[in-house]
This record gives sequence, structure tokens and C-alpha cells, in this order.
Amino acid sequence: MATNEFDLIARYFSQQAVSRKDVPLAIGDDCALLEVPSGSQLAVSTDSLVCGTHFLPDADPALVAHKALASNLSDLAAMGATPAWVSLALTMPEPDETWLARFCEGFFALAEYYQVQLVGGDTTKGPLSITLTVHGFVPQGQALTRSGAKVGDWVYVTGNLGDSAAGLALLLNQQHSDDAQLAATLLSRHYEPQPRILAGQALRDIASAALDISDGLISDLGHILKRSGVGAELDVDALPLSPELCQFMPDRDKALQLALTSGEEYELCFTVPAQNRGAVDTTMAHTGVKATCIGQIRAGSAVSLVRDGQPLDWQLHGYDHFAE
Amino acid sequence: MATNEFDLIARYFSQQAVSRKDVPLAIGDDCALLEVPSGSQLAVSTDSLVCGTHFLPDADPALVAHKALASNLSDLAAMGATPAWVSLALTMPEPDETWLARFCEGFFALAEYYQVQLVGGDTTKGPLSITLTVHGFVPQGQALTRSGAKVGDWVYVTGNLGDSAAGLALLLNQQHSDDAQLAATLLSRHYEPQPRILAGQALRDIASAALDISDGLISDLGHILKRSGVGAELDVDALPLSPELCQFMPDRDKALQLALTSGEEYELCFTVPAQNRGAVDTTMAHTGVKATCIGQIRAGSAVSLVRDGQPLDWQLHGYDHFAE
Repeated sequence: MATNEFDLIARYFSQQAVSRKDVPLAIGDDCALLEVPSGSQLAVSTDSLVCGTHFLPDADPALVAHKALASNLSDLAAMGATPAWVSLALTMPEPDETWLARFCEGFFALAEYYQVQLVGGDTTKGPLSITLTVHGFVPQGQALTRSGAKVGDWVYVTGNLGDSAAGLALLLNQQHSDDAQLAATLLSRHYEPQPRILAGQALRDIASAALDISDGLISDLGHILKRSGVGAELDVDALPLSPELCQFMPDRDKALQLALTSGEEYELCFTVPAQNRGAVDTTMAHTGVKATCIGQIRAGSAVSLVRDGQPLDWQLHGYDHFAE
Repeated sequence: MATNEFDLIARYFSQQAVSRKDVPLAIGDDCALLEVPSGSQLAVSTDSLVCGTHFLPDADPALVAHKALASNLSDLAAMGATPAWVSLALTMPEPDETWLARFCEGFFALAEYYQVQLVGGDTTKGPLSITLTVHGFVPQGQALTRSGAKVGDWVYVTGNLGDSAAGLALLLNQQHSDDAQLAATLLSRHYEPQPRILAGQALRDIASAALDISDGLISDLGHILKRSGVGAELDVDALPLSPELCQFMPDRDKALQLALTSGEEYELCFTVPAQNRGAVDTTMAHTGVKATCIGQIRAGSAVSLVRDGQPLDWQLHGYDHFAE
């Protein structure tokens, strides 16, 4: 490895504006030294984005950086944690200063917004990939987990669902839109997800279980059901769709199916005991995040779909939405 | 990504024996939840190993895992930290169960030895690489950093130097030995470094600065000098060489030059105020780790080499030891 060239890369990462008081020692020693506030637990999550698997080689590095950090922060949001630190392992074939400059732009813009400090990492030579490990704080015993859903709890999602998959279809030229503005909006929903940090924190005292939607609502809700030992009934007509998705995909049932399976949404799916439903409305109104009740936890182990109270037997195929 | 196949990978990583009390929630939720003891700072370090850059495609996965974790733990050792948790991001082209089984064998053997719990990570499809983030504890304000060396402090290293580079030369067929036992010993020094965890902890109250030798003594000592604003004089004849290296490389000056530049040794280099020299001997005897005084911190900014008190102008070329 050409150490000097990779030292150059490391210097790109010293340009951050965030300097936290709980970081006595950051980049430049064998380890970072960090301080967790007393009474808090540390929440930690790791995500890798690999070129060719998670993004295209010609993707804008600023958007790649945004998505890498946003998807990682979204895991903190799903626990109700407050973001604090991130480490970055960057592997690239050759030091490419143009790429690095754009990457840092996207990375530090989002990191600064959430006051997340880059505290360390590694830069190595090899096929392009990014691995982030985020750290956040959550008051002792108050984290939102996947295992707390109870029969009778109500199921909610933040924001709208389906836009990310629509944006991906446009990106991969599987679908086309003559409306450039519409296409740009949907692409941006795919590229620039916003982690639901404030909503996650606000839900700590209200929700019984939560996670973020990265593989698709049906699949991710399945994780809550499995860990909680329950089933769920979803009213498909309650699913929140954006006006843009409705315009892009006029067949409403197709749009609803997309909403059920679209991955990389980074919205929160959470369950709420009946007595906390009013608190959800009030709290979400304060955070400015839309939350929609889409169903209820039932005994059992599976997700069943209903329309007008009647079972619906849609066959859903994950990533095959756009297959003929 | 074929989620199910990668779920399979994840299951390999659920076979660990270590279950720490400071891990209320480990693998299986959006984040791990972790508890740092009160009065301790958290030490965190990230390392990537990329196939083709850091190891050969046909390398034994158990040795790759050992080296990945050992080199990462070595960063904790260099801070005087006690290891606690690790997260693992594994990228591989296809789920290869034979490879995974061997990898886990090497990984969990070392993790268990140090009671390090795997608390999370990510498994993704792509070119083979491993990124680890280790977490350890160090009592508030007692971490060993690179910036504390003072003029007059003595410079020490643990263990012997040069064996890793000799093993690498054998591995790459740049050198040959007719003595199979000797070759196996040197190869194992390259493949199976032992992080100096106990020595690092023991040095917390004794050393003024420390780091681990990953790029070569001269280069790494340079980091201490730069961050401490000092220079150093090293007595080349004081450098600790193993009997195996002396046998493998009978030209003593060549062996010494190798010791000065050999990377991936994962021995500690540390500086000690004069009044603590006795404490070094006593403490290192307790830990069973050899520590050798190899020079002294001087005013200035560079490393100068001496023999019998006279300057020596060896030209050292990092990784080119074996070039003709």
C-alpha cells in the first residue's frame, strides 16, 4: 500500500467542523477516546455500502456518502438514540481527489447537521466500498427494540412508502417518466433519505417496538413480529403514498404493493399500545413528522393484508416489482 | 442481494461463546446496546483487511480472521485499553460455508481468549474484505497516547522485531529456507501476531507514550516523535532479534535493518521517563513480556541511528527489504 497516498486521503477527513466535548482524542492516535454520558447506554450499528452492490460506479460520491451515513443513522433513529460519533472505513482502488472531495461534501453536510463527529477509521486500497460504524446514546433502559410488540398494539409508519423503489426504478431505467420534475423528486427520495432521528427519540416513551424500513415494510415488520412472538394485520388502503408516487404509478394497487415492499425507505415502523395513540399524534405533530396508523398487532406470527376488513391475497415479490 | 443467503452468514456469527454483562442487547436489532463502566473512557479503533491488498486469496481464513482481530486489538493494547466488544463488516462474493466456518474458528478463538463479544456488523455481497471496529475501556485520563514523549525519556519495544517481514518474504517466495521448522516459525510470526494487551495495560502508569508497530519501527516511532515534538536516537545493536531471524538472516546488519522497517509486528513501542525504568523491568517481568530499551528521546524531530555511540547512515527502504 502506498502509505503516503493514503495519508492524503486521511487528510480529507480532517476537515470536519464538528468537535464534540465527549471526544477527548479523535483521529491520529491508535484509538479514539470517547466518553459516554453517565446514565446512558451506547447504541452501535455498522453498515457497508459496496460499489456495484449498493451503488453504481458513476453515482455522485456526495449522494453515496449521504446515503451511507443516513442509512447508518437510521439504525440509531430506530432505537430512539441520539447520534454522537462515526468511524469510516473507506476502501478505494486509487486515491481520487475529485471523488474524495465530493464524498466529504455529502458526508460532512449530514454529519454536521446531526453533530456527529468522525472519530476514526481506516483507508485502504481495493475495490470501492464504505463501512460506517455509528455510535449514539440512549437513556438507560429506554431504547426502542424489536421485541416489545403486544397483541392489540397499533402499527404505524412515518412518512410515505414506495418512493425509494420508484426512484430506484427510474435510476435503473426500468421505468421512465416524461415529467422531469417528478422523476427528480423520486430519485432524490431514493438517494437522499432522511434518518428519522427526532421521531425515534420522541417515540421512546410511547412505542412498544420499532425498526427502520430498509428491506421493505412486509419484510421488516416481520422482524418485529418474530422477535415479539406476534402477528399483524395491515389495512393496505391505509398505507401512506406520496402524491408523486400516485402520479408516477396511477394503478393504485401497484403503488400500494410497491409501498409494502420498497426497501431503503428509512422510515420508521413502530407499534403503540392503545393508550398511547393520542400521544403519538401529539408528539409527531411536534416533530413535524407524519405518522400513519396502518394496522394492528394480532396473535399469530405472520402479516395478513386486509381491504375493507376482508383478507387480500396479494403475492408480493420483494425486489421484482418491475418485472413483467 | 440475496438476503436469505446472507442471513445464513449472519447465523455463523451467532455461535460465539462470549456473553458479556455489559451487552444488554447484541446482534439482531437495529443497534447493539452497550454499557461503558463508569469512570472509564471508551477506546475505539477500525481496521480493514482487503483480499489482494492485505492477504492472498488462498490464505487460510482462520489466519486471516486471527490477523484481522489481532491487529485491531493491538490498537487497544497501544492505548492501554481492556478489550470489550467488536463489530464485523464482512463483504464476500458468494456465501462460502467452508470459508466461513474456518474464518469463525480463527475469529472466535482469539475473541474468546480476550473475552471480546461480537456485538454487530453487516454482511454484504462484493469483493472479499473484512472491516472490524473494536471497543475497549481505559480508566479516565490514563490512556497511553502518542503525544507524551519528553526529551530524556527512554525508548522501548516489546518482544522481537523483524520476524513478521521475514515470514512475509517466505510467504511471497522472495526468500527461501531449507529449514522447514524455521520457515514455519517465521510464517507463524507473520500470520499469528499476539496483541500486547496485558503489556499495554501494565504500562498505563509507567510509559509516557506508546503505539503498536504496524508500518515498521522507524515509521511508527516517527508518529510519536511528530505528535510529541521531539526526536530520538536508536542504538541499532540494542534491537531485539529472535534466534530464528538470526538463523534465517545471518548477515546481522541486514537483520537489524529488517527489524527497523518490518511492519505488522504488533509489538509495542513506548517511551519511559528515567525514573520509571525500574518499574518497566518489574512490570514486564510480571506480564511475561520481554521489553528492550533501544534508545532515547532527544531534542529535534527525526530518528537518528547510532552504533557504539557513532552516527550510522543506513538507507532504509520500507518494504523493499528483499529487493536486490
